[in-house]
Amino acid sequence: MVSFDDAFRRQLQELFVWRRDVRRFRTDPLPDGTIERLIEVACLSPSVGLSQPWRFVIVDDAARRRAVIEDFKTCNADALRSYSGERAAKYAALKLSGLEESPGHLAVFADKTDHIGSGLGRATMPETTEYSVVAAICSMWLAARAEGIGLGWVSILNPARIQEILEIPDAWKFIGYLCIGTPQAECDRPELEKAKWESRRGPGEFTIRR
Amino acid sequence: MVSFDDAFRRQLQELFVWRRDVRRFRTDPLPDGTIERLIEVACLSPSVGLSQPWRFVIVDDAARRRAVIEDFKTCNADALRSYSGERAAKYAALKLSGLEESPGHLAVFADKTDHIGSGLGRATMPETTEYSVVAAICSMWLAARAEGIGLGWVSILNPARIQEILEIPDAWKFIGYLCIGTPQAECDRPELEKAKWESRRGPGEFTIRR
Repeated sequence: MVSFDDAFRRQLQELFVWRRDVRRFRTDPLPDGTIERLIEVACLSPSVGLSQPWRFVIVDDAARRRAVIEDFKTCNADALRSYSGERAAKYAALKLSGLEESPGHLAVFADKTDHIGSGLGRATMPETTEYSVVAAICSMWLAARAEGIGLGWVSILNPARIQEILEIPDAWKFIGYLCIGTPQAECDRPELEKAKWESRRGPGEFTIRR
Repeated sequence: MVSFDDAFRRQLQELFVWRRDVRRFRTDPLPDGTIERLIEVACLSPSVGLSQPWRFVIVDDAARRRAVIEDFKTCNADALRSYSGERAAKYAALKLSGLEESPGHLAVFADKTDHIGSGLGRATMPETTEYSVVAAICSMWLAARAEGIGLGWVSILNPARIQEILEIPDAWKFIGYLCIGTPQAECDRPELEKAKWESRRGPGEFTIRR
């Protein structure tokens, strides 16, 4: 049996504090095999009925990367139009993805039709398939930060368009698009908090009920 | 800037390997404040647009806990009827929740209507609200295991019934029901793998595409 000591727990807490959604990357490439190694960690994550529905698509092709960036720009322009006044000005000033600079692009999907796990745990809550893939992304995120690698999750994208660009079967549901690379800087505060878009709250303030 | 060393990264890898979906708990209570402390860690998790949509309901009331257990039994019996032959026999033999024994019950919801974050990042993918809550559960799961505390995620429940039992507003979406307590034993292999329900696969086998 493996047990963990106070020193490890303190560092783990620091890891949670310092894990960031990174949008400002250096452009130099990651060492070969880095993304594959992070995917291996992701595959240790919990999945409903041990279904392991995660599917990873490493996007190296320049034309496809460019098409994803174009889709982000379209969706981000649409989003900007939904705000007005001061909020719109703030939104326009935010840097919301590192797609242009990050050396690693990784699209992540949930296979909704694979029969691994025989549907166990999914009958009343089929969305647990998607949740399992989110768990995998979260493991990868922490493992990356522990190595000084930054990860940013981009959701300002049109899922149908991403499926098309990457020629993904309909049975795979798009979960997230990850930028992976070396961060330009490290910070213990969320980017959106620094930009005064939103502040981080403590658990006692609004989240716990009995 | 905080950096992490090889020793920490090795232990973090061990944590991923040894995090389990626990179903066999000791019945003795956790020290006061344990669940609240784990919720604090959960609140450090990434959330779309810094929306922090997680809502935690600590279920201490005996009648409500009993009602949740009854709902699990109903849903589990329904699930059993969907299998036949050897698969049904195997399913019937599985222990799929620690609801009866675990001292801690925690229901977790996503608030779909809160305006924190002003919808940033959610326009094309509103499901990222739910994904943010999954991220919070995953952080809590790792932090718990690092302390020797077991967590089991129960999804064999009827979400509408859980909302009713716990008198939850419609705007909160049920994400998962967590059993929390001291595990009877520790293991580095998933319970479903030990029971030969499903085997764990490596990433190269079926998950990576380029």
